[in-house]
Amino acid sequence: MNSPKPYVIGIDMGGTNTVFGVVDARGVVLASNSIKTRKHADFNDYIDELHTEIMRLLSSIDAEDKIFGIGVGAPNANYFTGMIEDGVNLPWPTPIPFAQMLSEKFGIPVAITNDANAAAIGEMTYGAARGLKDFIMITLGTGVGSGIVINGQLVYGHDGFAGELGHVIVKRNNGRLCGCGRTGCLETYCSATGVARTAREYVEITDEPSLLRDIPVEEITSKDVYDAAMAGDELAKRVFEYTGNILGEALADFTVFSSPEAFVIFGGLAKSGELLLRPLRESMERNMLSIWKNKVKVLQSELKEADAAVLGASALGWEAKPLTVTMVQPASAAPAAPMA
Amino acid sequence: MNSPKPYVIGIDMGGTNTVFGVVDARGVVLASNSIKTRKHADFNDYIDELHTEIMRLLSSIDAEDKIFGIGVGAPNANYFTGMIEDGVNLPWPTPIPFAQMLSEKFGIPVAITNDANAAAIGEMTYGAARGLKDFIMITLGTGVGSGIVINGQLVYGHDGFAGELGHVIVKRNNGRLCGCGRTGCLETYCSATGVARTAREYVEITDEPSLLRDIPVEEITSKDVYDAAMAGDELAKRVFEYTGNILGEALADFTVFSSPEAFVIFGGLAKSGELLLRPLRESMERNMLSIWKNKVKVLQSELKEADAAVLGASALGWEAKPLTVTMVQPASAAPAAPMA
Repeated sequence: MNSPKPYVIGIDMGGTNTVFGVVDARGVVLASNSIKTRKHADFNDYIDELHTEIMRLLSSIDAEDKIFGIGVGAPNANYFTGMIEDGVNLPWPTPIPFAQMLSEKFGIPVAITNDANAAAIGEMTYGAARGLKDFIMITLGTGVGSGIVINGQLVYGHDGFAGELGHVIVKRNNGRLCGCGRTGCLETYCSATGVARTAREYVEITDEPSLLRDIPVEEITSKDVYDAAMAGDELAKRVFEYTGNILGEALADFTVFSSPEAFVIFGGLAKSGELLLRPLRESMERNMLSIWKNKVKVLQSELKEADAAVLGASALGWEAKPLTVTMVQPASAAPAAPMA
Repeated sequence: MNSPKPYVIGIDMGGTNTVFGVVDARGVVLASNSIKTRKHADFNDYIDELHTEIMRLLSSIDAEDKIFGIGVGAPNANYFTGMIEDGVNLPWPTPIPFAQMLSEKFGIPVAITNDANAAAIGEMTYGAARGLKDFIMITLGTGVGSGIVINGQLVYGHDGFAGELGHVIVKRNNGRLCGCGRTGCLETYCSATGVARTAREYVEITDEPSLLRDIPVEEITSKDVYDAAMAGDELAKRVFEYTGNILGEALADFTVFSSPEAFVIFGGLAKSGELLLRPLRESMERNMLSIWKNKVKVLQSELKEADAAVLGASALGWEAKPLTVTMVQPASAAPAAPMA
């Protein structure tokens, strides 16, 4: 165990799959695999399978003794406490002391953060944000997540939960109901789910012909809207205009907070490319305070989605410190001492 | 000149008065004075008078050789470039290389930042935010300014202009015209000016009796609204409810960005106390994402308004570094090297 430790493990726990990989210092994914996140009703069984599969992966590349640390991106994961906190759509009771459990299982230091923060770290270390000290990662998936980097450092805030930009209220009146229990949150409009909701509304409140009418209205997905728009469907194109317009208004507002050099757009919906980015950029500039007009870039992620979260999580692995007693304290109003 | 330098000078350039003071390391203002900001049509004459008066002040306490540095809070002042940038309501052409000019005049290092940032530094060093590493200063004066502190550091952003929270859009439709040329900005509702505008609207669109009807409608000030509300005037009290409600919605949104431990409310309108703070807190909690409900403090500034900006500016004086050539570069899309 005194040999050099040239690799880290990155783990991305998603709602469906948990992907993990072995990564070297230059960001090369040497090997990767995945398990189903929801297969086990008991979290201990999930950890056991994860451990077994990761050990198998390490063995396949003869790397069992070469791991410096483990970095994890997971929903509602708190960098300070090492816990997956309450209020998240997972099949287990929360909070879960995930960092502690993993660290004990592997005997290796573990650092965890939420998935959007992990993506931001990955983008800063290996992707479109290389060299940027001030940027905001916006992840457009089932929800809208964000990772905020200021002066080269990820913003965790007082309690480790900073950067929940998907829950900025963009419609004060008559806004859509959000999973958080409030109404009008950005993610009810500008996530993949939000795009599907907008398309369903358009189909239901107008008589306009559309390819989307061939699909039962409750089954329309953002992918359907993308396909229809690419086939020239006017209604579908307007769904992207509407979505980009709201997201552009929001990014203009976010700019006054931290004055970023760029926004990096990431996630399933970001693959819509200019369908979304053109109206987004136009709206952002139209709504921008004059001192920032035409100065803030909107970039697409340069990381393959399959790699980004694992790479981001793995980059966090280099920061992981050995387990300390402060990490096992339950989350409370006063933050525990940082793990790192 | 080899004697110890135990003092700093803090300068607060306001739209009307420029206040300056000599401050020791514990935040004691040893002496202070002020000049009229708008007296001179030529900025060189303004600098000359400022220099003369500050030297007179230093002489009065025998401190000419005891000044470590000068810190300045001024509208649109950029920490990175040392310039007062464009787009500000001052009687001189901008940009103005204020830090360079002052430093050459006094032969002492100078650091500058905008007035709200200076107030945040003052509050962190000497006021209600002592010991806080994550807080947001909200200044409620003629406009709404802000200074954001994350992990103990003031957020300047990519270009030095971060923290313009008064220009977050709080009304997307039918919003009030803002001095920035857009509509619906927070400061059109929640500044002293915004309170007066709301009161005028209420007086004009209702027949409700009010003490404010004794004042010509265009002359109603926020102070008049405060006085009326304190005298029990229902209409005036509702103006504060309306103002606090909007500001509370905004603070709930700001929380998702940097997860601050507290907001510190400062400036003329903050003196309204519970008239404003009660509806503000109620609205903030009503609109808060569940993970932060009842966790984020709203504090009133503990600094006397007359002292706060001078103290904040003076605290920046301890960071001032000798003039370097990078400071005299004009502002551009790419930031100049930081002065410090």
